[in-house]
Amino acid sequence: MRKIRLGLSQINTTVGDIDGNVRRIIEQIERAVKTGVDVLAFPELTITGYPPEDLLFKPHFIQRNIEALSTIASHVPDNLMVVVGFVDEEGDIYNGAAVLHDGKVVGKYHKNYLPNYGVFDEMRYFQHGDKALVVSFKGMKIGITICEDIWYPGGPARTEALVGDAEIIINISASPYYMGKLSWRERMLSVRANDNLAAVAYVNCVGGQDELAFDGASLVIKENGEVIARAKQFEEDFLIADIDLVSIDKARLRDPRRRQDKHNLDERTINELEVLDIDFKYTEHKPRIDQRIETALPKAAEVYHALVLNTRDYITKNGMKKAVIGLSGGMDSSLVACIAVDALGKDNVIGVSMPGPFSSEHSKEDARLLSENLGIKYLTIPILDVYEKYLDTFKPIFGELPFDTTEENLQARIRGVILMALSNKFGWIVLTTGNKSESSTGYSTLYGDTAGGYAVIKDVYKTLVYELAEYVNEKAGKEIIPRRVFEKAPSAELRENQTDQDKLPPYPVLDEILRMYVEEDYSVQDIIAEGFDEETVKRVAWMVDVNEYKRRQTPPGPKITPRAFGKDRRLPITNAFKEWKKS
Amino acid sequence: MRKIRLGLSQINTTVGDIDGNVRRIIEQIERAVKTGVDVLAFPELTITGYPPEDLLFKPHFIQRNIEALSTIASHVPDNLMVVVGFVDEEGDIYNGAAVLHDGKVVGKYHKNYLPNYGVFDEMRYFQHGDKALVVSFKGMKIGITICEDIWYPGGPARTEALVGDAEIIINISASPYYMGKLSWRERMLSVRANDNLAAVAYVNCVGGQDELAFDGASLVIKENGEVIARAKQFEEDFLIADIDLVSIDKARLRDPRRRQDKHNLDERTINELEVLDIDFKYTEHKPRIDQRIETALPKAAEVYHALVLNTRDYITKNGMKKAVIGLSGGMDSSLVACIAVDALGKDNVIGVSMPGPFSSEHSKEDARLLSENLGIKYLTIPILDVYEKYLDTFKPIFGELPFDTTEENLQARIRGVILMALSNKFGWIVLTTGNKSESSTGYSTLYGDTAGGYAVIKDVYKTLVYELAEYVNEKAGKEIIPRRVFEKAPSAELRENQTDQDKLPPYPVLDEILRMYVEEDYSVQDIIAEGFDEETVKRVAWMVDVNEYKRRQTPPGPKITPRAFGKDRRLPITNAFKEWKKS
Repeated sequence: MRKIRLGLSQINTTVGDIDGNVRRIIEQIERAVKTGVDVLAFPELTITGYPPEDLLFKPHFIQRNIEALSTIASHVPDNLMVVVGFVDEEGDIYNGAAVLHDGKVVGKYHKNYLPNYGVFDEMRYFQHGDKALVVSFKGMKIGITICEDIWYPGGPARTEALVGDAEIIINISASPYYMGKLSWRERMLSVRANDNLAAVAYVNCVGGQDELAFDGASLVIKENGEVIARAKQFEEDFLIADIDLVSIDKARLRDPRRRQDKHNLDERTINELEVLDIDFKYTEHKPRIDQRIETALPKAAEVYHALVLNTRDYITKNGMKKAVIGLSGGMDSSLVACIAVDALGKDNVIGVSMPGPFSSEHSKEDARLLSENLGIKYLTIPILDVYEKYLDTFKPIFGELPFDTTEENLQARIRGVILMALSNKFGWIVLTTGNKSESSTGYSTLYGDTAGGYAVIKDVYKTLVYELAEYVNEKAGKEIIPRRVFEKAPSAELRENQTDQDKLPPYPVLDEILRMYVEEDYSVQDIIAEGFDEETVKRVAWMVDVNEYKRRQTPPGPKITPRAFGKDRRLPITNAFKEWKKS
Repeated sequence: MRKIRLGLSQINTTVGDIDGNVRRIIEQIERAVKTGVDVLAFPELTITGYPPEDLLFKPHFIQRNIEALSTIASHVPDNLMVVVGFVDEEGDIYNGAAVLHDGKVVGKYHKNYLPNYGVFDEMRYFQHGDKALVVSFKGMKIGITICEDIWYPGGPARTEALVGDAEIIINISASPYYMGKLSWRERMLSVRANDNLAAVAYVNCVGGQDELAFDGASLVIKENGEVIARAKQFEEDFLIADIDLVSIDKARLRDPRRRQDKHNLDERTINELEVLDIDFKYTEHKPRIDQRIETALPKAAEVYHALVLNTRDYITKNGMKKAVIGLSGGMDSSLVACIAVDALGKDNVIGVSMPGPFSSEHSKEDARLLSENLGIKYLTIPILDVYEKYLDTFKPIFGELPFDTTEENLQARIRGVILMALSNKFGWIVLTTGNKSESSTGYSTLYGDTAGGYAVIKDVYKTLVYELAEYVNEKAGKEIIPRRVFEKAPSAELRENQTDQDKLPPYPVLDEILRMYVEEDYSVQDIIAEGFDEETVKRVAWMVDVNEYKRRQTPPGPKITPRAFGKDRRLPITNAFKEWKKS
């Protein structure tokens, strides 16, 4: 029999929760046994959760994770091989994959390529491995890799397939989500499978961890590049797929590239190979399975699910339950309220209207209407009295100085103080509602509308906020966010007849400039050369640069673009590279 | 003549300010020429400033730095060799040192060892070099290294000295300050000099960059390990020293280690060596110089100078001038006011007393007295009216719920709002006054006392705060901080008869536990084993862990310990590794 049943266990681990993660892993092992799985794989650093960051500097943390590995191994029978992610310690520490079989740790693999870009800092912690690993039983050969390893065209996967004749490459992964990453990842893995004439079994974790969402969507890909199984996005899942090795044998007879490549193997690019034979009790008669290819979500749904997952996990993994949101009647807070309800349930979301001296009637109505549509608790706390008392207090200092951003910020800060008081008194987490267009340009009040525990849409440009809002109403099949909210001009309502476009260019223009400047490292001159107005580009670049200090003090929030503010973009605050100053 | 005159140009560059840094470099070249310097060295990444962080992702930034290098080279005459730090681009980018002579770039060295720990992320950006470089003229040989390179016992410095026979090793550096680093650095460099029987010329930059202070204290060390010149700490300086190469010749004849070592050279540990001969017009008759060994500052003075430098540079490099501080009459705000006055001058510091319902008479008096002693502007803005108006506003929601931290935080937040309003109206930066004991334990109010632009003593434990305060009065030779402030029990005065020790253990105990837990990665059990009370240790560890979210939203501030919060300590917020829960 040349057939292997793979199980990919796409679980939602919690960073640092070694006991909880182990319990979850053992449950999954039991499930695999029941379904006749031969080889079960878990995501990268399953035992510790990903990324453990500086927990990796604690020797007692490493030790607990190694003890946990033995516990897990003791649950693995002789007709199952398990690949699980852990931190190995052999003088240095390694990002490792353990091969478990018949109650024991029978093999170990160390990640070869350590990502140290974007949100990743793995060179801060780990020694890199330099060996490839093939596990073999009954003449069937399985190569092991970890995440980044397979993003390189050469490296251990290639060694395993070409030198070790591996027919299946397992990749255990923790791949943070951003918009559109799934399709790129599938394309890449599909090419790797075909280049190596090997099946690729890719298991990704799922869940939110501070600013990162892991999107799941684990995959099994045939040697011809075809996706034959895909797990759910943004949910735990257990994916099973049967791999027909005879199909791989045939491809290797037919395809000349493999033979050519074997001739051209270059000592410098090929890793040392370790081959591990295990005495495997192969289960001949397996129960029938339902091999699924889950449909990939379209863009708005994908982003929305990421935001919901991250928000839910941040709140619940940190031991909280209820969230409070200041509802202005505008689009941002409306969307955040919808996400919160999907993340926590309507009984756990509280909307607060805090009308001020410049709030319009329609804003108050739209906030109330949204709350009714969502079925959430709704409070009204006017700020006027406190606002006037502050003005009285400042009178001896400010004298007759004119109204300016001071008084605008004051209103926003009173609202921040009110929400934080509710948070302190009732234990609700405050969700902030600023979007990426705002946080990029600093169009926000520090300690005002930026005050809170989680910034749900901080990486979502305003134009995308509208798309997500349309998705919310579509998904519900009715108007959750009132139509008027889509139609009115965005405004902070902090002074008479204010709109966002008093200070900012129209959002479609702004967002395009921001994408180039913030995410793509375009120079100011290059953006102008793309046909944008010079003064506008310079003003936007100036706003982005001088507001770095503000972003450093805002709460965490989900990354959904290729480059989010935070670990992903590390610019100095003190920075005299002022492109907007040059003529 | 076997003698070389070295110039070490310890300048305060600004990150991103390529034009400004170039101007500064050219001035120093002119100065070197006047003083008969043969070899002039600048700190690491002189042209871009250090650390440029993600500016390194901008190709136009790299390009401007390379253009700047040519400009600098054109100012170098034929009787001077200059070593300057820049970003090199040869396919990949490198942390580079250029050798300039007679109007041209005559050689380049690429940093071999890229630091990627603590506050460093250099593997995020650079390719590492793998060659050593020796520059030779008139039979005299000089090896080039960059910062981290010389912290390894082998590497390029050893290759240059043993294989290339370099008699002087230049190390251009950007070494962030922490307490006591100078003495450790000198010890290490002294051993390197003696191990290699070569003089070491170490040039460090000086200045504040966001959370980092660079402390200068550039050094020249003889081949016998003796420091023969030391520049000032925390100030720009131009250090000149003459190196007698005959003394090195003699040491190499006498000391058998060098001959033994040459036998034992291992291909794997020795770098490829590049040797560069330059046609140098050696200046035979040089003006006399005053070779200085500046006295190293004692601990309190050293830390105080670091805080002053960082505060001044953060404020002025970001284009601000005046600072406002909420003065409570307590020790922390008193110390911060003193630092601010030394950083900015008394006319640029404004103290604000904001008495509340629980403020004591002595607090108000002590704040006023401090302001008088410092000669700063002093405002009083009472918070009681606004506080009561908030309580009225919350009445319909809170009903008869008892007074708790909500009302305490409310007072702190009103003060935060007031300071921020002053900041907005007058352009003053708010300096926050929380210390490391507080930020570690979360004994602070987010958006309250943590609200501001720069957190001057965020990395200073409370016990050290008292030492620095004593230093302030000693330095002044009179009472600047009133004696009563030293004597009274620390209190936030947010409820009746409150003291810090209601919630925290005594500061000497707390600070010791924090040092072990935060900086040294002790486990909770290990700290208990050091003789500390179990319940206290667990409570402190719990406070540290659950307040990670708060620290993420606080302003930047100077790093003065080996591990500060910030880039230096990257723990997840969502973190279920709860040692304080285990029995």
